[in-house]
Amino acid sequence: MQEKAVSIRSLYEAFASGEGFPANREVIVEGWVKTNRNSGKVGFIELHDGTCFKNLQLVYGADMKGFDAISHYSLASAIEAKGVLTLTPGMKQPFELQVEKIRLLGGVADDYPLQKKRASFEFLRDMAYLRPRTNTFDAVFRVRSVLAMAIHTYFQEHGFVYVHTPEITANDAEGAGQVFTVTTDAKDPINDFYGRRASLTVSGQLHVEAFAMAFKDVYTFGPTFRAEKSNTPRHASEFWMIEPELAFADLDDDMDCIEDSIKFCIRYVMEKCPDEMDFFEKWIAPGLKAKLNDVLNKPFRKMEYTEGIRLLQEALKSGHKFDNDKIEWGMDLQSEHERYLTEEVVKGPMFLVDYPKEIKAFYMRENDDGKTVAACDLLVPGEGEIVGGSQREERYEVLKEKMEKIGNAKGLEWYLNLRKYGGCVHSGFGIGFDRLLMYITGVANIRDTEPYPRTSNNLKY
Amino acid sequence: MQEKAVSIRSLYEAFASGEGFPANREVIVEGWVKTNRNSGKVGFIELHDGTCFKNLQLVYGADMKGFDAISHYSLASAIEAKGVLTLTPGMKQPFELQVEKIRLLGGVADDYPLQKKRASFEFLRDMAYLRPRTNTFDAVFRVRSVLAMAIHTYFQEHGFVYVHTPEITANDAEGAGQVFTVTTDAKDPINDFYGRRASLTVSGQLHVEAFAMAFKDVYTFGPTFRAEKSNTPRHASEFWMIEPELAFADLDDDMDCIEDSIKFCIRYVMEKCPDEMDFFEKWIAPGLKAKLNDVLNKPFRKMEYTEGIRLLQEALKSGHKFDNDKIEWGMDLQSEHERYLTEEVVKGPMFLVDYPKEIKAFYMRENDDGKTVAACDLLVPGEGEIVGGSQREERYEVLKEKMEKIGNAKGLEWYLNLRKYGGCVHSGFGIGFDRLLMYITGVANIRDTEPYPRTSNNLKY
Repeated sequence: MQEKAVSIRSLYEAFASGEGFPANREVIVEGWVKTNRNSGKVGFIELHDGTCFKNLQLVYGADMKGFDAISHYSLASAIEAKGVLTLTPGMKQPFELQVEKIRLLGGVADDYPLQKKRASFEFLRDMAYLRPRTNTFDAVFRVRSVLAMAIHTYFQEHGFVYVHTPEITANDAEGAGQVFTVTTDAKDPINDFYGRRASLTVSGQLHVEAFAMAFKDVYTFGPTFRAEKSNTPRHASEFWMIEPELAFADLDDDMDCIEDSIKFCIRYVMEKCPDEMDFFEKWIAPGLKAKLNDVLNKPFRKMEYTEGIRLLQEALKSGHKFDNDKIEWGMDLQSEHERYLTEEVVKGPMFLVDYPKEIKAFYMRENDDGKTVAACDLLVPGEGEIVGGSQREERYEVLKEKMEKIGNAKGLEWYLNLRKYGGCVHSGFGIGFDRLLMYITGVANIRDTEPYPRTSNNLKY
Repeated sequence: MQEKAVSIRSLYEAFASGEGFPANREVIVEGWVKTNRNSGKVGFIELHDGTCFKNLQLVYGADMKGFDAISHYSLASAIEAKGVLTLTPGMKQPFELQVEKIRLLGGVADDYPLQKKRASFEFLRDMAYLRPRTNTFDAVFRVRSVLAMAIHTYFQEHGFVYVHTPEITANDAEGAGQVFTVTTDAKDPINDFYGRRASLTVSGQLHVEAFAMAFKDVYTFGPTFRAEKSNTPRHASEFWMIEPELAFADLDDDMDCIEDSIKFCIRYVMEKCPDEMDFFEKWIAPGLKAKLNDVLNKPFRKMEYTEGIRLLQEALKSGHKFDNDKIEWGMDLQSEHERYLTEEVVKGPMFLVDYPKEIKAFYMRENDDGKTVAACDLLVPGEGEIVGGSQREERYEVLKEKMEKIGNAKGLEWYLNLRKYGGCVHSGFGIGFDRLLMYITGVANIRDTEPYPRTSNNLKY
């Protein structure tokens, strides 16, 4: 069989478009056995070739040479089949392959660990190298790929320049969270390869701001790291982040871009992955598609933090229960508070803006009230915060004083200098890619959205 | 001025398309001063806004309020200008802005380091946060962004699933090169965060092979690391790699994909970045476009390593000088040998295939001759190797024996297992993204293609 195999995706696409579908013609397919059953007279193989979520049904007759051997092709076997593609109106699947010739390319040893019909997510996490073969992870990782492409498509089409900010860095960015040290000489991490202490980045923002001062609109999209032993479903020590930065843009421009890009990504995935989204809706998170459509169809509302606190205090007075019920101006909101505002008050996506400066990062622009900064968090029903952004402090003296106060001016002189070398009003935001994927797929644990998740005490592969 | 500014790119695009160009209309632009000169009666500012390589000429008259102040807007100042867009047939630039109102958004301190007309690349390397404002790096980093998009576009359009293989890993892949250790406790790197030794990845290939056994065609595209103190123009300790992996594909399929994807990327960049390519042709690497067009127009030839050795020996006999002139079967070719074959013999791009197994990685498929493996290197004139690929050893017993011999079977059982759980013939390749960018732009030093390059003793930002 030297002819080229066709992909199952191309067959479904041709069928759907009504053009070029090779009905009653001979084709070759390759892939892996999902199920194999037979009545003694006729056998059926569900073939999965990884090019789409759907399978192709192969039908083989008892009169075929090697029927017995074929009927023993077990789950996950790699096979090649040649046959005639036949329309099957009225059946569950629109077409099937009447097999003429079939060949085992790779058998499966008896100790194959994924025999069980429905393995738990926990069990599958331990099988990171095999789990993409299951329906759930086939869907999750294809959507992960499509969502990444949505990000690039959106920002490139809007003229943003993609910047590969470094993974290894001399500064720990916002001082947020613990960092990993990178070394070639464990005994002396400071004086080794780089001649100074080197860490894995926690954010590319500071580095990318310099590029916004050259290209106007830029974005990073790459891995970031936190060495926190947070054993929660939302924390991993390695994850991907998108960090756009816009020059000549204030907080309102920033929020416009957040809303537009998030809506674009959701729409892109729903359009490109309808089968996967149906699967999530049915098996992972009923109500998912309504939730996403609601986000698509509503303008994102804006509310000041101060107003949010007032509404939370009011809710408390009216008898609403919060685990953390000490609601006061200046507090960092917990997920329950964010969710109350977006789910109960606004009943839709919302930006909470103008946070107390004490609870936000040093680089955020101080508002004229002297108390708040021009920051925004995007809150969505069912989740809470999914994007955080801010206008950046563009005033040299104001930023310098702040940085000297918190003690990070040394080593970041270059960052400060951006404010005296043709600086301008600019803003940006950060999207946790894995968390956005969790939100769009309804998958509840970040460990189930990353190909080989890294969390504390978990580095098997 | 509350109206929205237009981008310089949108003006040139509208002008070129003949549609929607706002001739004789009022527009607002924002950007940075590239040059500012005046005759006392009239002034000219070349405005760069980062959205494209081209600038916009602003013309301001001596009758303007604040003419004197405006004429002192120095290099790199951030400004906003409102005026009427006027066609200028017969002039160097097709249109200009007759300024009515102009405003300084961000001035430039006197110690701005990029005053000099033509700073050296070495000087600019030390100014990584400012150099994207120069013509060369404006072009390099925009092409870097466009080339990254070319990669994603090619592979996604061909049905490949993008897999984020991990940066932090428990194994050192092919055992190639020294690795960085990742730790939170320098005193005890083994028993800290992950409970075992953790390194930065040198390749995502082994991890992504598992995904090819689920999705058929996959690719990684992310940072990789080498802790080698190679102080050459082609080595950095952090760089981006593209690693596609194709199931049900042999070495010929692999080479088809390499040729097609490389040609696609070159064509994509040449089409999307004509101004930048003109700049490289003129200032960085004369002959660049002819070199690239040659690659586009020629089919890539295939030659066996054994034949390559024979031709090199013949050249030696005929008087050709090599620095390393001990040419014998089994040797690892140096750049001078590769370039002789591609430049002098083939006079075009070529694959050298079927290398001695001793000089190639353990996972490459052994050919029937027992001496060579199904590996291919893509060699191009002017550079040598730019892509390396191979068919992977899919036979469980053969691979097991090899891995036990070199001692990496322990810890990589999962990788070996892929061969007994529905494995199949598969192939893949690796493209060093930064080196491909060097090749396409003609930039000679990898430090000048990375936003913040990391090399030994160099971690300023």
